Amino acid sequence: MVLSPEQQAVADANDAFYTALTNSDLQAMDEVWFPADWTECVHPGWAALRGWDSVRESWRLIFESPTRIVVSASEVRVRIVGDVAWVSCLERMATTDVEEIHTSLAQATNLFVRHDGRWRMAVHHASAVPFLTPHATTESGLVN
Amino acid sequence: MVLSPEQQAVADANDAFYTALTNSDLQAMDEVWFPADWTECVHPGWAALRGWDSVRESWRLIFESPTRIVVSASEVRVRIVGDVAWVSCLERMATTDVEEIHTSLAQATNLFVRHDGRWRMAVHHASAVPFLTPHATTESGLVN
Repeated sequence: MVLSPEQQAVADANDAFYTALTNSDLQAMDEVWFPADWTECVHPGWAALRGWDSVRESWRLIFESPTRIVVSASEVRVRIVGDVAWVSCLERMATTDVEEIHTSLAQATNLFVRHDGRWRMAVHHASAVPFLTPHATTESGLVN
Repeated sequence: MVLSPEQQAVADANDAFYTALTNSDLQAMDEVWFPADWTECVHPGWAALRGWDSVRESWRLIFESPTRIVVSASEVRVRIVGDVAWVSCLERMATTDVEEIHTSLAQATNLFVRHDGRWRMAVHHASAVPFLTPHATTESGLVN
């Protein structure tokens, strides 16, 4: 996908989220997110957390765990309508515990709102993709 | 959540989606969705399908299967910014096969865009919630 400068700004905000996640950097998360009571986060397999306080606390707990997470986003698509943008991307994750490395895939929908000229994350919804179905992979262009 | 008239219109569009799904009604889905090449759908466990043609085909296949799906949405939250609205809700699903009924929960993020005064679905992201964690249920107000 060729991105316009405006879309690139959204993609950069999206990248900042994954960098904060990979670095277990809670202060960076504070910059990435829009700190509102309607901010929402769906971790894979979880019900939605609502409100920045709850969302932030979940990141704090995740970052404090001994498991390290490295995430890279691919298949990034950006759409902007007014002051709202959303990104669809495939998360390739490596979670490292004391003894093993586990790799997994998740599909993410990340929604950003433009506030004071800056894109801030308001919704993160990630869900595990146990396997890429032939249908899904073909449609999404992963296998072509 | 007390809804404003504008939010209620979004909630109604969201209800129309679940009614179409429960009725396996592809023509109703045609009315619910915004038929664009940037429309996206994430079925639980799938990678994103992109473009209305792919999304519609997935619903056609789902509706043609012998499994019947009955879905009701709860914990509905609506947010509107300009001509974009998004809904967070918990899907309570009963899937009925020839021999058994299976119930499950999924978390959904549904995004709508306003076009000619009407809210049309542009993104549906649903993911299985295998169990409600004490943390998640408390935060989302499910258990209180």
